[in-house]
Amino acid sequence: MKKRWIVFGSTLLALAADTVAANPVTMADVLAASKSSDWRALDPQRTLYMDLPAGRVIIELAPEFAPRHVANVLALVRAHYFDGLAIIRSQDNYVVQWGDPDSKREIPGTAKKTLQAEFGRPAKGVALTRLPDADTFAPQVGFVDGFAAARDPQMAWLTHCYGAVGAGRDNEADSGGGTELYVVIGHSPRHLDRNVTLLGRVIKGMDLLSTLRRGTGALGFYEKPEERTPIQSVRLLADVPQAERTPLEILRTDTPTFTALVEARRNRSEEWFKYKAGHIDVCNVPIPTRTPP
Amino acid sequence: MKKRWIVFGSTLLALAADTVAANPVTMADVLAASKSSDWRALDPQRTLYMDLPAGRVIIELAPEFAPRHVANVLALVRAHYFDGLAIIRSQDNYVVQWGDPDSKREIPGTAKKTLQAEFGRPAKGVALTRLPDADTFAPQVGFVDGFAAARDPQMAWLTHCYGAVGAGRDNEADSGGGTELYVVIGHSPRHLDRNVTLLGRVIKGMDLLSTLRRGTGALGFYEKPEERTPIQSVRLLADVPQAERTPLEILRTDTPTFTALVEARRNRSEEWFKYKAGHIDVCNVPIPTRTPP
Repeated sequence: MKKRWIVFGSTLLALAADTVAANPVTMADVLAASKSSDWRALDPQRTLYMDLPAGRVIIELAPEFAPRHVANVLALVRAHYFDGLAIIRSQDNYVVQWGDPDSKREIPGTAKKTLQAEFGRPAKGVALTRLPDADTFAPQVGFVDGFAAARDPQMAWLTHCYGAVGAGRDNEADSGGGTELYVVIGHSPRHLDRNVTLLGRVIKGMDLLSTLRRGTGALGFYEKPEERTPIQSVRLLADVPQAERTPLEILRTDTPTFTALVEARRNRSEEWFKYKAGHIDVCNVPIPTRTPP
Repeated sequence: MKKRWIVFGSTLLALAADTVAANPVTMADVLAASKSSDWRALDPQRTLYMDLPAGRVIIELAPEFAPRHVANVLALVRAHYFDGLAIIRSQDNYVVQWGDPDSKREIPGTAKKTLQAEFGRPAKGVALTRLPDADTFAPQVGFVDGFAAARDPQMAWLTHCYGAVGAGRDNEADSGGGTELYVVIGHSPRHLDRNVTLLGRVIKGMDLLSTLRRGTGALGFYEKPEERTPIQSVRLLADVPQAERTPLEILRTDTPTFTALVEARRNRSEEWFKYKAGHIDVCNVPIPTRTPP
């Protein structure tokens, strides 16, 4: 009987070919077999809730890659800088952006308007769960604590995948700071990598941003104030009363379970698939979240 | 004085470095310098208008890659099969799909419900304007008459880039036929390549599809009929009265101008960019359209 070896969680399984056919190892199987230690809670000190009229967007920040920008965004958030501002731009297959439409709101004394850019960081010290797959843009790609990232021998940087959140800037490299933020809503614009500071990722509520009516102005900016979506508030999870929190865990990306998940996506064994891709794009690996059991 | 050589249109230009800095060759420059022969009209025999309440979606079909499916979709369209049907699925970062929500509409006698799959075609005879860039999924990628495509020594196939239109199917490979169509609205799901028949591409009106409220059912299907978007009509351009046509031309992808455009996107020279990517993803090359001058 023909056998196939499959890495599943931390276990190497020998399965008869007919068993595999009957019981393909899918992402759903991997998640169903996951242990509680495969999941982690969201860190209250680096998770943001952005509440919109239509619902909640949850953003995880990446201080390991953008410490200055993350600290600044936290200062802005704690001073309620974003509350009452708006989503001002929605450009199809590109980004949605929010901030102060009138550039009138005062920057709180605890924060800064602009910062030195953080387009990348030294590669040394970055624990990349590497994908073996070729990437068009970088020598190595993979995941660092849930964030899609890339590295070369010198530098490491976050990649512009769907849901990545960055600090909008003007032409000068150091002209951003986090007062205006954008999120990728289309095919990954990887040419933005190392050109702008990425500081986090939307982990829940992307559909609230990706479905916003596109702006008709240049670069997808809204031309009329009434087209903008108001931001009710942006809060740090640590400051949100327990009763208002969204119960959520995220899959760790440094575990054998995650490796099994990637393989289940690289070579899809669901019956629908007739051809196994044999490869996976760093921007197409889902990072599952769940309501804690 | 330092000089840089730049391919621009069909001309190799020697520019002083300071001229380049002052006059970077951007996509806008390439398009501004394009000749009328760099553009082509849409073929009335393989262009569809899908009119929705919010506006018009224009789809170009790819008979070179999916002749059976294209012929079948044309037969369905000419029998008004899609008129009054609906958009039934919107799954974030994946696809929007349309067809008969109730599976009740009769297939016209000139068309078929299912067809032999067309996941790829022989590579021989395909005029691929190849990209030199590495691709995660295929040995070679590039463009064929405006369509992003890939090939290996044996086969060629269309790639699942943003805007690609395919024929939904059930688990059996030959269970699709074009009565249900989907379009990619997120990061390219290239693992679908060679698993499903791609037959065309949305060239205008993507935002009307990408911004549709996501369905809350499994796979993004709408749970309530009233959440669906009605399709007013799908017509072949050849059947549309002149007065109702949208004037539109599309850039040819087999010209030196297109090659210059790709280079202008591979290494962005706009002042905003600080780091040139040096590479481009086949799914991130824009194929410009314009109102004929």
